Amino acid sequence: MEVRVAEEIFKEFKEHSIAEFFKKNRQMLGYSGMVRSLVTVVHEYVTNSLDACEEAGILPDITVEVKETSDTHYTVKVTDNGPGVPKAYIGKALATVLAGTKFHRYVQQRGQQGIGAAGCTLFAQITTGKEISVRSSTGKGKAYTCKVAIDTVRNKPIVTDLTEMNDGPSGLSVEGEFADVKYENSDHGVYEYLKRTALSNPHCQIRFIDPTGKENLFIRSVNVMPARPEATLPHPLGLSVNDLLDFARLSQSRKVSSFLVDTFARLTSNKVAELKEIAKGVDFDKAPESLTWPEAEELIKAIRTVKWIAPEATSIVPIGKEQISIALKNILNPDFMNVVQRKPGVFRGGVPFVIEAAVCYGGNSGEKTDEGHSGTMLRFANRVPLLFDASNCALTDAMKGVLWKRYNIDLDTQPVSILVSICSVHVPYAGVGKEAVSKEDEIIAEAKLAIMDAARGVQQYIRGKQHASFEANRYKTTMRYAKQLAKDVADLTGYDEKKVEEDIKALTLKHYPHLKENASEDQGQDDSGQRNDQASEPDEEKENQ
Amino acid sequence: MEVRVAEEIFKEFKEHSIAEFFKKNRQMLGYSGMVRSLVTVVHEYVTNSLDACEEAGILPDITVEVKETSDTHYTVKVTDNGPGVPKAYIGKALATVLAGTKFHRYVQQRGQQGIGAAGCTLFAQITTGKEISVRSSTGKGKAYTCKVAIDTVRNKPIVTDLTEMNDGPSGLSVEGEFADVKYENSDHGVYEYLKRTALSNPHCQIRFIDPTGKENLFIRSVNVMPARPEATLPHPLGLSVNDLLDFARLSQSRKVSSFLVDTFARLTSNKVAELKEIAKGVDFDKAPESLTWPEAEELIKAIRTVKWIAPEATSIVPIGKEQISIALKNILNPDFMNVVQRKPGVFRGGVPFVIEAAVCYGGNSGEKTDEGHSGTMLRFANRVPLLFDASNCALTDAMKGVLWKRYNIDLDTQPVSILVSICSVHVPYAGVGKEAVSKEDEIIAEAKLAIMDAARGVQQYIRGKQHASFEANRYKTTMRYAKQLAKDVADLTGYDEKKVEEDIKALTLKHYPHLKENASEDQGQDDSGQRNDQASEPDEEKENQ
Repeated sequence: MEVRVAEEIFKEFKEHSIAEFFKKNRQMLGYSGMVRSLVTVVHEYVTNSLDACEEAGILPDITVEVKETSDTHYTVKVTDNGPGVPKAYIGKALATVLAGTKFHRYVQQRGQQGIGAAGCTLFAQITTGKEISVRSSTGKGKAYTCKVAIDTVRNKPIVTDLTEMNDGPSGLSVEGEFADVKYENSDHGVYEYLKRTALSNPHCQIRFIDPTGKENLFIRSVNVMPARPEATLPHPLGLSVNDLLDFARLSQSRKVSSFLVDTFARLTSNKVAELKEIAKGVDFDKAPESLTWPEAEELIKAIRTVKWIAPEATSIVPIGKEQISIALKNILNPDFMNVVQRKPGVFRGGVPFVIEAAVCYGGNSGEKTDEGHSGTMLRFANRVPLLFDASNCALTDAMKGVLWKRYNIDLDTQPVSILVSICSVHVPYAGVGKEAVSKEDEIIAEAKLAIMDAARGVQQYIRGKQHASFEANRYKTTMRYAKQLAKDVADLTGYDEKKVEEDIKALTLKHYPHLKENASEDQGQDDSGQRNDQASEPDEEKENQ
Repeated sequence: MEVRVAEEIFKEFKEHSIAEFFKKNRQMLGYSGMVRSLVTVVHEYVTNSLDACEEAGILPDITVEVKETSDTHYTVKVTDNGPGVPKAYIGKALATVLAGTKFHRYVQQRGQQGIGAAGCTLFAQITTGKEISVRSSTGKGKAYTCKVAIDTVRNKPIVTDLTEMNDGPSGLSVEGEFADVKYENSDHGVYEYLKRTALSNPHCQIRFIDPTGKENLFIRSVNVMPARPEATLPHPLGLSVNDLLDFARLSQSRKVSSFLVDTFARLTSNKVAELKEIAKGVDFDKAPESLTWPEAEELIKAIRTVKWIAPEATSIVPIGKEQISIALKNILNPDFMNVVQRKPGVFRGGVPFVIEAAVCYGGNSGEKTDEGHSGTMLRFANRVPLLFDASNCALTDAMKGVLWKRYNIDLDTQPVSILVSICSVHVPYAGVGKEAVSKEDEIIAEAKLAIMDAARGVQQYIRGKQHASFEANRYKTTMRYAKQLAKDVADLTGYDEKKVEEDIKALTLKHYPHLKENASEDQGQDDSGQRNDQASEPDEEKENQ
């Protein structure tokens, strides 16, 4: 075998751009499988529209149009009423991977990577060779249209055909043509994606024109904007040594002590005094940028021994119990449901997150199967539905970890839908395609508790339903014998047959006092559900150990 | 709610480097979970060493040393006898994300992204703030040591403490200190990772010094280098329109026709003539760089209607049936196994890949459980063991898709190990962390057929084993009665008891002629296993539909 030396091998050494990387590995962005690829395109554009509208304080009105142009070729057009994109930024916004407004903010957002829209441009380009057509207005009568492509070798935008005009309200419209995609009306298709998006964004109106030309309207069910998540200061418990040093280097403060108070949440001057007591080796009066790694390490250790108030959750805006209830009623119309929102938790020491969960029974819950029904799961992260990679997701693990039998629920046969949503300043996605939440222990545990909470509220209803059907059967059976029994008693005793029958019936009814009322009463909607008695809780907590 | 306009929002628009991105999303590189993070470091360095040795034509000798320095802090040192890295490249090789020698080559390699080693540097830096220590010699008496860090904001290397010297054979040694990691002797730990690496790289010798100081040696079991995969021309069927245009732009050929013949495999001038007949709208005499998208699209359509010889598999070097057998014998020492190698398949039209599979029974196969045994799976991609994200992987789907009952195999109770390996010019990984193979239909189908092939060879052995144990039981039972029966017959007839007993025993033994031999004989190793009779095959194929 020929032996090659290093100098020769390294002649081939090259750097390549992130755009080039994803061009070769498009499956990592969600572009694998024809149905999924189409959903990914819709997902990226709709996500960006929602983020933009929210940031501008505008109730989102989004139109999605999917047209089949030829075999496996489709156009996707997404139009919003958001703030638009200034001309100077349109190229980078749509055709530079890892560029955006959101990457360094400590606030809950759907997008943040700056990969999504550029990924769409890349995908259009490598499957149809076509640019993305854009129309944007920033709403002061200034609008333009253009075409955008990406120079993958340099990861730079190519903007052409720029035409400026004066008209229209603010908004952005993007349209691309993609091949290697397919529209399918399935659980993993565009329709389902938009339905779930509407569910988790009830303040949003979505008009969807599908490839048959049919218009589907997901109406706005809540007429107020969700509270804007506030960018907050990072919590000390979420910091690594490296984070602390990064912040120190950027700090304008003159001393370490004031840097700490200025930069982090819950870090008061009292806390600094406490830290001084523990981190004896740190000079709190020196300039923050001169902090060394050992000093920062000592500081972090001290931070982890001091007691802290939990991070504020103002940077997180969960969907909301009421909003979830309204949306679930609109979309699934279940016979019964229970929605819970847990208190904020933290993972990796101090990154705050909030889990919401709901369990729905009956109506359009679950999935229809040949034999009847089975349970389904709806996963969300920062209000974005997650349709793929379920097996790789912390939320799925949480759902699977619940002992459903305890709640009288059988996911194999009952019409049950389980919703789990995580909202966080930084959702730890398992992959660049953001279809699954990384399996952090704290997230799995918290999601499991939330699902158990929600299930507990449905349990009584299901148990009641089972009990009621059992009682109704016994009552009916007894009643069947009443006439015959009355006749026999009358024959034997000479009493009046009618009277005996009435007595038997009255006696039986006395035994099942709630039956008549219940028979006609609809236990109906109760979004708060019924919590079980506290006595059962210790048991449930055990399950979670 | 305050309304913000676009200009204001886009003031915050920024680009960020890929290093910065992964710093924030280290879980995407495999740095999530303390045990997994440590394995990821070892994996990245060992993979690079193996690739480097193979490329230089050197039988790899690798030493891995893991030491605990303090709570959750470990050092990892990997030393190889490879070609080393020239001084001018060491910074970029270890501290620039997306840089390397392998990205654009059309050849099977373990690494190719140029992310792994830089990821380790990043991970050391953000968990301990320390640089990576390097010692390299390119083997002509020229050696150096240095420290390497990464400027994450610019994705550029920082090389310090460079000292040159004159000594030593060629090789590279890298050492880093990492926190947030943990050594564990489990199925997902470093020891297991190296054991499996030895299995899929029998030409490699690995010395592993674990944190207790114990030295574990995985010896070289094959003394020849695997054939070097040849970089081959891409096959026309694997091309997208965009690929074709990319190649055309880089081409030195003067005409489209010669460009096609020069650039692609199996594309002869006869084939060009065929293509001309179909793609009437394409001018084959014009310069390749002037090809338009519609022309390229027409060409690709024509390419897909013409018949092609399958891609050469010289760019792929699977592990090899014999090598797998030797390695499995060394490591699992099964009572029986069957190893198969399938013919090259293609996915996405024309990317070639080869699947190998083995099913082992007995010995150290499977996993010991409280109740006895259960089956395990060993996944490999380009000879690299995949330890994580099993549920997200095409190879797992293939394994789960097999109807094991048909092969008399019960994965819940039997000591069975299933090995599946994919080798390809471009393994489509599901994520940047490369722990799972993306679920391409062709790969799942091909892997399933391979596993079924392998299982079929084991089936007869297991059936035989079951039958033998059944017969042995009957024989033993009959023998238990022989003495009593002889006595009774003797009593009744007056015949000699001894003689009657001997007759009965002889008669019984006549019924089970193979029993005595089999009892002492070890059916032993037969790496080719036994293929079932052809008659059962159509049945099996059905299962795969």
